[in-house]
Amino acid sequence: MEKSLIYTPPLARLIEQLQRLPGVGPKTAQRLALHILKRPDNEIQALAKALIDAKKRVGLCKVCFHFSEQPICDICRNPNRDSQTICVVADARDVIALEKTREYRGKYHVLGGVMSPMDGIGPEQLYIQPLVRRVTQEGVKEVILAISPTVEGETTSLYIGQLLKPFTKVTRIAFGLPMGGDLEYADEVTLARALEGRQELN
Amino acid sequence: MEKSLIYTPPLARLIEQLQRLPGVGPKTAQRLALHILKRPDNEIQALAKALIDAKKRVGLCKVCFHFSEQPICDICRNPNRDSQTICVVADARDVIALEKTREYRGKYHVLGGVMSPMDGIGPEQLYIQPLVRRVTQEGVKEVILAISPTVEGETTSLYIGQLLKPFTKVTRIAFGLPMGGDLEYADEVTLARALEGRQELN
Repeated sequence: MEKSLIYTPPLARLIEQLQRLPGVGPKTAQRLALHILKRPDNEIQALAKALIDAKKRVGLCKVCFHFSEQPICDICRNPNRDSQTICVVADARDVIALEKTREYRGKYHVLGGVMSPMDGIGPEQLYIQPLVRRVTQEGVKEVILAISPTVEGETTSLYIGQLLKPFTKVTRIAFGLPMGGDLEYADEVTLARALEGRQELN
Repeated sequence: MEKSLIYTPPLARLIEQLQRLPGVGPKTAQRLALHILKRPDNEIQALAKALIDAKKRVGLCKVCFHFSEQPICDICRNPNRDSQTICVVADARDVIALEKTREYRGKYHVLGGVMSPMDGIGPEQLYIQPLVRRVTQEGVKEVILAISPTVEGETTSLYIGQLLKPFTKVTRIAFGLPMGGDLEYADEVTLARALEGRQELN
């Protein structure tokens, strides 16, 4: 018996779509889909609307490449934040994690990933050139590298460090982070400690 | 700093909506939302459309209460399936699980849950009356109870068994050791059930 006979077609399509989400396998997709069929119409319409809306209204900040509804994001536009300090992260989720510590008052720069030659991701695939431009044109006093200490992350940190050291002080967050761990999953106290204990690159 | 300042509003709303799904906590919702923002527009529109579509087009079969696009579902309308055997399950996902075995050629009846006085779910909240009607009006020869052997499931099975025994043969699926399972690690209740349900070798 075909799958298409077990699931009525709209249900099959929903399961297929849900399976494209990260960490959602066939079992989870089925569970989610059956749950969705049981919920009231307006609840599912709200979810669909939130999807479309977020996609339509949220783009990337032209300065730091964090998610933003405006051409320039709230953090970049905030006059109370220190423009002379830029914290460089791989991904938008790292900005969110750092913001949750409430410890950092500077600005950010989102690279959009880390260098990974195996996956064809070199410096050109990341927002590294715009970072160099910010540093050389805006009188930045310190660049804090807050990239997860994986092999690719280390490579990326070293590469950016070499690139920026002629122009500014470059530091890295302290490794209160467990090696091989993921910045996204560190608790807030550990992240705050790591920020505090940052060291200058030699 | 407020959450609403960490997440731009459409992103915050998307995270909030995703968190309503079962098994999706704040971390998972954030991960899914950030993933969604990075995907192409058409992919997310397809997901949103699948949600609305499934919700709009899939209802319950009037006969067996399984999910169906038609007033009467494919299984109930299939003339090759044995109408005189009804397998009673708690939920639509159980129909799907049983269909995947490709062993069963009869029809189904979905109760929509199990009796749970603590949660205010009695026989009236389940599709038990329509089952009795099917059995008494359609000349059903066997009702197979395939309800999980939890406390609530057992109660429900016993209740339905008492109700239907005057009209038809009522059986239950076998409970015992799972295939590939190790006797040593089976719990005592399962082992007791396996012993009780022993079958003569032919």
